[in-house]
Amino acid sequence: MASTHVIAEPRVPQVVITREFDASRELLFRAHTDPDLLVQWFAPPRLTMTVDRFELRDGGTWRYQHWAADGTDYSFRGIFHGEPSPEGIVRTFEFEGMPGHVSLWTVTFSERGGRTLLTHNTVYQSVEDRDLDLRSGMEEGADDSMDRLEELLARLAPVSR
Amino acid sequence: MASTHVIAEPRVPQVVITREFDASRELLFRAHTDPDLLVQWFAPPRLTMTVDRFELRDGGTWRYQHWAADGTDYSFRGIFHGEPSPEGIVRTFEFEGMPGHVSLWTVTFSERGGRTLLTHNTVYQSVEDRDLDLRSGMEEGADDSMDRLEELLARLAPVSR
Repeated sequence: MASTHVIAEPRVPQVVITREFDASRELLFRAHTDPDLLVQWFAPPRLTMTVDRFELRDGGTWRYQHWAADGTDYSFRGIFHGEPSPEGIVRTFEFEGMPGHVSLWTVTFSERGGRTLLTHNTVYQSVEDRDLDLRSGMEEGADDSMDRLEELLARLAPVSR
Repeated sequence: MASTHVIAEPRVPQVVITREFDASRELLFRAHTDPDLLVQWFAPPRLTMTVDRFELRDGGTWRYQHWAADGTDYSFRGIFHGEPSPEGIVRTFEFEGMPGHVSLWTVTFSERGGRTLLTHNTVYQSVEDRDLDLRSGMEEGADDSMDRLEELLARLAPVSR
């Protein structure tokens, strides 16, 4: 499997996660925007995911939940800025358990010779907010999710490319 | 007049501007959200301002223009995240002349004993985007705007407090 790179510098309210995939950017875009695909790879380990709302357009709102085995749910919400496309997806992000703490989450898909570099760039209102995300296991979660995304893309590839 | 503080650290994609005003946070919120008040203080020196759209609600869109004397206009747009209130205003921000470069702009109003600390916190997708803003005269522009805001608040105060 490819490796996931996470850049999180001290005292900088930003996390940049990158990973290269053997897939087109259109397929990666679909894996990020089709709820039936998204729920197969995106949630942290041991959580499942449901998508409550996903209005994929400029100004559209989105909301999803992660669920623990005991039924505890964690809800997240935000708004798409600009028209989401295989060029990229820009949205705001807020964990409903910590209202008022908002981040800007940009996903870009950079295709080169049939392979695509995926970048998740998140900037936070403060370093404290960023550090909370890191302490909640963001790095390990990202690596695990990206592994599952790679497996999903392999399952889709025969019919999609 | 009070002084404007601008924090912009090297290699950090963020600018934080603060200034204390002798006014309630409700009045400061109005000066930020009533287009007739906003255009009186917000534009950079030598530019005038018109507000094209200002849907002040969660998910609402906004768009305004700054105009040079020769008729050149600079348009900006974005979306409000969460319900704007005297607690704060969170929105995305994009200069239409540089599409795809988006920032997250949070304004908070912290009242203490009749005075209010105003904070404009902007986080960018990259340090390069932040540095472009700084080089375009953001600091001087902020100081000038805050002076005009102070003058506006003094004009409003007799009827508003």
